[in-house]
Amino acid sequence: MNAPTHAAHLAPLVQARPVPQAFLDALKARFGDNCSTALVIREQHGRDESAFAPVPPPSAVVFAECTQDVADAVRLAGQYQVPVIPFGVGSSLEGHLLAVQGGISIDLTRMNKVLAINAEDLTVTVQPGVTRKQLNEEIKSTGLFFPIDPGADATIGGMSATRASGTNAVRYGTMRENVLSLEVVTASGEVIRTGTRAKKSSAGYDLTRLFVGSEGTLGVMTEITVRLYPLPEAISAAICSFPSIEAAVQTVIQTIQLGVPIARVELIDHNTVRMVNAYAKLGLREEPLLLMEFHGSPAGVKEQAETVQEIASEHGGNAFEWATTPEERTRLWTARHNAYFAALQSKPGCRAISTDTCVPISRLADCLLDSVAETDASGIPYFLVGHVGDGNFHFGYLIDPDKPQEREIAEALNHKLVTRALNLGGTCTGEHGIGLHKMDFLVTEAGEGAVNMMRTLKQALDPHNIMNPGKIFR
Amino acid sequence: MNAPTHAAHLAPLVQARPVPQAFLDALKARFGDNCSTALVIREQHGRDESAFAPVPPPSAVVFAECTQDVADAVRLAGQYQVPVIPFGVGSSLEGHLLAVQGGISIDLTRMNKVLAINAEDLTVTVQPGVTRKQLNEEIKSTGLFFPIDPGADATIGGMSATRASGTNAVRYGTMRENVLSLEVVTASGEVIRTGTRAKKSSAGYDLTRLFVGSEGTLGVMTEITVRLYPLPEAISAAICSFPSIEAAVQTVIQTIQLGVPIARVELIDHNTVRMVNAYAKLGLREEPLLLMEFHGSPAGVKEQAETVQEIASEHGGNAFEWATTPEERTRLWTARHNAYFAALQSKPGCRAISTDTCVPISRLADCLLDSVAETDASGIPYFLVGHVGDGNFHFGYLIDPDKPQEREIAEALNHKLVTRALNLGGTCTGEHGIGLHKMDFLVTEAGEGAVNMMRTLKQALDPHNIMNPGKIFR
Repeated sequence: MNAPTHAAHLAPLVQARPVPQAFLDALKARFGDNCSTALVIREQHGRDESAFAPVPPPSAVVFAECTQDVADAVRLAGQYQVPVIPFGVGSSLEGHLLAVQGGISIDLTRMNKVLAINAEDLTVTVQPGVTRKQLNEEIKSTGLFFPIDPGADATIGGMSATRASGTNAVRYGTMRENVLSLEVVTASGEVIRTGTRAKKSSAGYDLTRLFVGSEGTLGVMTEITVRLYPLPEAISAAICSFPSIEAAVQTVIQTIQLGVPIARVELIDHNTVRMVNAYAKLGLREEPLLLMEFHGSPAGVKEQAETVQEIASEHGGNAFEWATTPEERTRLWTARHNAYFAALQSKPGCRAISTDTCVPISRLADCLLDSVAETDASGIPYFLVGHVGDGNFHFGYLIDPDKPQEREIAEALNHKLVTRALNLGGTCTGEHGIGLHKMDFLVTEAGEGAVNMMRTLKQALDPHNIMNPGKIFR
Repeated sequence: MNAPTHAAHLAPLVQARPVPQAFLDALKARFGDNCSTALVIREQHGRDESAFAPVPPPSAVVFAECTQDVADAVRLAGQYQVPVIPFGVGSSLEGHLLAVQGGISIDLTRMNKVLAINAEDLTVTVQPGVTRKQLNEEIKSTGLFFPIDPGADATIGGMSATRASGTNAVRYGTMRENVLSLEVVTASGEVIRTGTRAKKSSAGYDLTRLFVGSEGTLGVMTEITVRLYPLPEAISAAICSFPSIEAAVQTVIQTIQLGVPIARVELIDHNTVRMVNAYAKLGLREEPLLLMEFHGSPAGVKEQAETVQEIASEHGGNAFEWATTPEERTRLWTARHNAYFAALQSKPGCRAISTDTCVPISRLADCLLDSVAETDASGIPYFLVGHVGDGNFHFGYLIDPDKPQEREIAEALNHKLVTRALNLGGTCTGEHGIGLHKMDFLVTEAGEGAVNMMRTLKQALDPHNIMNPGKIFR
């Protein structure tokens, strides 16, 4: 295991490449007002939700309105060998949007049209700047929904680029399973399609999944076709408190091992419940809790819920608090969705360093309990939430960005956690991506050979290294 | 659309590269009796279930017993720039195993160990030569099963290499969704791992899915970790006959659009029912039929079945014939599993040219009915079966290999069918792969740009073009 990457280690990654004035002039000539060099705009596009210290922002921001805009911007950048960083709503937690090698940002939020709703095929094709909430709003009348919910109202482009997942993944899978095909602008500015709307295909290499999770380093996605699902006939949500994290986790493990098709099962530890109570006056019992959701027919939902209630009560879980109307469900899910902001508010001025390990379900308790003990002992305040049905959880270490020693402690905790997860057969990142933060962990996890293969692929598809350079691998 | 690839067009693909005697000597020295140059062995490894005329077989067959064997064979082949073709049970339908550029075959059937059953995580790690039936036999005591069932008792390696799927895919997905990670011998003979046992991951490029479906052209899989599922508490199978193919297909479309989690829904047309009756004395009504299977809790299965029965009866479907015991289910599924052999026996000496289009579910009737009319008009006997819940179906045109005009007619029918499927937003291959047979279709489907990207990836990972060369793209 290499040394952890933290602020002190970001410096060597910052190697701004020249951005010739001739390039900026050409960009301005092509895009006019849709190309901005105003500092405030550039600064907005040079940061994300990660806890990295700021680096100099990109030299310009292009607001793309169509695929041709993206292709032209990338082609121009290629001529001058200038880095290109695709930008959605900036909700990355891993430094994906930092212009560590300089270059320009392509803002895709104006490409926010739902292009084709194929309700009868359970698919929809969108531009990359459509957010998940917008998408669900626009397809509401079809009786279908897009389940992937990473918490933030991220863009479908950003979610595809990081292979995002979130609370519903335990039942509906991740972006890996739910992106059917893409239109992509390659590093040479060419426009390709990676697949069709057929549900399955064996037609050549799986370019779709090569781009999903490539973090903007291979090209820019300009159209995304994703799967939709019929809104369940019945939805029930429930909260259940447990005497310990272990009791909650054991409940989850048994639920998954029994094959209960639970739609969501989120862990929130007592720390975080306390923060959320303070933030949103929810009056929840300040004990570890599971927040669950069941989807299906009324009978199916009842059956699933009964099975899980039985398992929970064997582990000392309290009576379920139920929510079946959309309003009640929203109230319960507020606890989960507010966790991040509630935590930030619990320590004014802090930043959160978020962990993202994911382990095989049987190892979840081993991985989690030791890390909780370690983190408690460190004295660093934290929140702990988890998509535990998938073996994925997040500590958010709340650090004062002006106190390097807090960052050091947090990174050391993360390092121990990742090492533990890898030893248990898991991954350093379940859904956030590698970005700038986990490059060394990736080498430990995947091995030099696999990372070299990734590098070879990158070099083959982007020989001038202009697509979001400096991310995923050094 | 380019001209269809048929026998006459195979000739230009056959370009055997030199296999130096020094290489064969080195191989023999390394592998002894595990390297065979006997003609009968070589001929066995130079063909598959496709309808291509034979080409000269590989120069030698290495029987690999471990990863190191594979690595050494590939490294030696690399030194001499000799093609390498991985071989399982030879059930490819697309010419994947034909040594069109000469070289050697690596037989992986002795690498047939189940390496690690992680029942508590619903995963299993196997060597590539394990067949799907063997796998299910070996994990029987765990209460879990591996659902992917392409019909043939193929190896897990071969199924991964072609991104196979089959009858259960409508509920459980394809190899794309079910392979968690791989150990791979790369074209340079290096051994890498493409992932962990975590259920999801955002750790860099998705190498697992780059290899799944790469048809042996990027490396040799030596270990495969796949997902398992709890055996359903209840399983019911049913047959239902319909007055027309259209009525059957409309039943399927509505079932899928309603989101019924049906586990299998297979179409068998009246032609094929007749063939199967003749072959296995099943006494089935000689009308188009759907063969269905429902998995879940007893109540869930009942609910699903009731919904589908209602839809079927709206379309004139007859009463369901039910099978709930394993023996009864086996009898019903015999019809499906025997279709291929029953068809071959209906025209002694014939070969089947199999189509494999897959379209979005709403286009299934459009695609299928026009093609049925076209094929009926051609006079070529055929069978028609389909994993219709996924929009995927197969015509098997039964041709006399000694009558080139029959092959011409069959290929022309396939050409029309693929053109139709692509126009409807579908793919030329749902599960069989491109191989030698669909290279021109791939260009039409994916576009020159995407195919060139595949070629670039191939060149980057296999610069001497030794891994199953001449397949997927020219």
